[in-house]
Amino acid sequence: MPIDLEKVRSETPGIRNRIHLNNAGAALMPNPVLEAMVGYLNREAEVGGYEAAGEAASELDGVYDSVARLLGCGRDEIALTENATVAWQLAFYALTFRPGDRILTARAEYAANYVAFLQIAKRTGASIEVIPSDDGGVLDPACLEQMLDERVKLIAITWVPTNGGLRNPAAAVGAIARRHGITYLLDACQAVGQMPTRVEELGCDILTGTGRKFLRGPRGTGFLYIRRELLLTLEPPMIDHFAAPWVAPDRYELRRDARRFETWENNYAARLGLGRALDYALDLGLHEIENRCGNLSERLRNGLRNIEGVAVHDLGPKPASIVTFSARDYTAANFKALASRYGFNVSASAPSSTLLDAAARGLPTVVRASPHYYNTEDEIDSFTRFVRDSRRK
Amino acid sequence: MPIDLEKVRSETPGIRNRIHLNNAGAALMPNPVLEAMVGYLNREAEVGGYEAAGEAASELDGVYDSVARLLGCGRDEIALTENATVAWQLAFYALTFRPGDRILTARAEYAANYVAFLQIAKRTGASIEVIPSDDGGVLDPACLEQMLDERVKLIAITWVPTNGGLRNPAAAVGAIARRHGITYLLDACQAVGQMPTRVEELGCDILTGTGRKFLRGPRGTGFLYIRRELLLTLEPPMIDHFAAPWVAPDRYELRRDARRFETWENNYAARLGLGRALDYALDLGLHEIENRCGNLSERLRNGLRNIEGVAVHDLGPKPASIVTFSARDYTAANFKALASRYGFNVSASAPSSTLLDAAARGLPTVVRASPHYYNTEDEIDSFTRFVRDSRRK
Repeated sequence: MPIDLEKVRSETPGIRNRIHLNNAGAALMPNPVLEAMVGYLNREAEVGGYEAAGEAASELDGVYDSVARLLGCGRDEIALTENATVAWQLAFYALTFRPGDRILTARAEYAANYVAFLQIAKRTGASIEVIPSDDGGVLDPACLEQMLDERVKLIAITWVPTNGGLRNPAAAVGAIARRHGITYLLDACQAVGQMPTRVEELGCDILTGTGRKFLRGPRGTGFLYIRRELLLTLEPPMIDHFAAPWVAPDRYELRRDARRFETWENNYAARLGLGRALDYALDLGLHEIENRCGNLSERLRNGLRNIEGVAVHDLGPKPASIVTFSARDYTAANFKALASRYGFNVSASAPSSTLLDAAARGLPTVVRASPHYYNTEDEIDSFTRFVRDSRRK
Repeated sequence: MPIDLEKVRSETPGIRNRIHLNNAGAALMPNPVLEAMVGYLNREAEVGGYEAAGEAASELDGVYDSVARLLGCGRDEIALTENATVAWQLAFYALTFRPGDRILTARAEYAANYVAFLQIAKRTGASIEVIPSDDGGVLDPACLEQMLDERVKLIAITWVPTNGGLRNPAAAVGAIARRHGITYLLDACQAVGQMPTRVEELGCDILTGTGRKFLRGPRGTGFLYIRRELLLTLEPPMIDHFAAPWVAPDRYELRRDARRFETWENNYAARLGLGRALDYALDLGLHEIENRCGNLSERLRNGLRNIEGVAVHDLGPKPASIVTFSARDYTAANFKALASRYGFNVSASAPSSTLLDAAARGLPTVVRASPHYYNTEDEIDSFTRFVRDSRRK
């Protein structure tokens, strides 16, 4: 079933106010997500926070099923977290590294992850190495395979980097990681909600995602997938009595599921919003979403490429719905502010967010325009015209 | 100024539905807290998540000032966290322990903290020792002082334990810790919002608190205070590019304030709710709140003590607003369910939440009834009658 554009737009109040091309930042929430949260917060005020959670217990529990449905895994392999970074941290910092161990990553790895690599390298003596990219800027699986030896303890890459449109070959990396028995941590923050994300096809051991971006969920939500066999071997970096009940004066017992990475207290309103966002995306269909995102972002890229003085910086053969450009006549920050005054939401992405890639490509702070399925072709064309005209503003 | 009971009750929608005596779980949010969150979530849906945060930047920034006002510290000494447990974990796991180092804690320490002690003891070879309590069940500062030597690296106690009414002598402990130059971590989760909590008077180096309990803020909010001189010496257990910007390919630089313990992404609606809750409490006055909480909880305790077959388990000379009891004729779980059907919110607190104290005192799962200033004397009396009558139900 193709996406019913009229319906999804009627359920998206934000489209009446803005042309929202900041879905790689935080997408516009649809009404069901907003209503779930507002309804729940009201209920907390009406009957009490614990009491509202008791009433909603089964719906709250269902959020794990929704994540599992998205990823094609078991609900016991899912932890819900404060955000995608915390999900990634809890898994990464649970891994054990010794001096000389090697961590392999990709050129466009996100700053949040890279500084954690640096901290662990300093703490343990592990080394960080960057897998080369091919001429098109895409991580080269053949190069990865040549780098492997028994000292490689982790392959950790971002599937869709925060800018640059790139879509790294996550499944090809997964096949190699499995063949060599190496732990594979996939940051899917910008992928979830804009394309199918099935952990078996990807071959990853750990996957992290956020609610607020292409899933159209609330801010302050994230989730962690850890393969069952792996999670039982991992002691979380920090624990409380939910993760590890206190069973005797000198002993705790870790939970047997991925929720050993959670704490007892949570923002239940946000969790319910996340659940609704997952169900909303799953009902539309991730293949349909991916197709429409692909069409809209390609339309935008082609339009921008025809504008003199504008450089599109996207990489790879089938880029994701993140369009990155710079322009001769303005800085990204100035453009973002100007665009906002004209009703367009975009973001500016600094070199420090993907330092190695930005340095290798000599990128300035870039403008990031990220369409989603609920955008229209007219909105894309109107933004393209705005970019063209803004050169004279 | 005494608390204007009529006004605070008119601003608390939940009192129309329930007699809420579960403030040590999560208090009823007042309208300003609810409205701040709902208004903000609507704005996110109307203009976008990043765009709404941009509009509210100054109000969001002000939340740090509100926490600093509550605690009497600098705003640079505050980090906002997902909950109080995460605040506590981030600080505790940042400390360094070596084999033979001693961690001193109190008998009624909360399970969340104790399992973390156990994990760190296992990981580092540090030992955990319990400071004796006096005959009244209160931590004994004289005993603490006798235990001290150069191997004591941390004193970590809960000010007001999760049940038992106890109020540990936090300031006396702080004076000793300061005199001996020992790091002092104070869990103030049940204290903030029901009594003044000034870090200079307490003498603590680290203090953690939650929004949802006596502060009447949202679930999924917490905060961390770390004394300026100490925080600059602490490397957080996990970092992202907000905590530690990526400044060169092989180098990150930790922030100079307590926000080195935060991550980039946050639930801004919840933060705004927390800010409003803090301001609401500060406007009423913590001394006034403490007085009224003390009167109501003492009225409840006295009422319960006169009921045959009911045992009150509270400790200490000036207990906090947490009233704990058990009854011969019903289990805590059964009582809680029955009370709920009659419109009373209370909670049941299991021995595993304070394992050492529960074992020392032979406590079963207890009923916890925790009044707040917005409760009335009539509500307290009505609950007391219900407890008396429920023995025959």
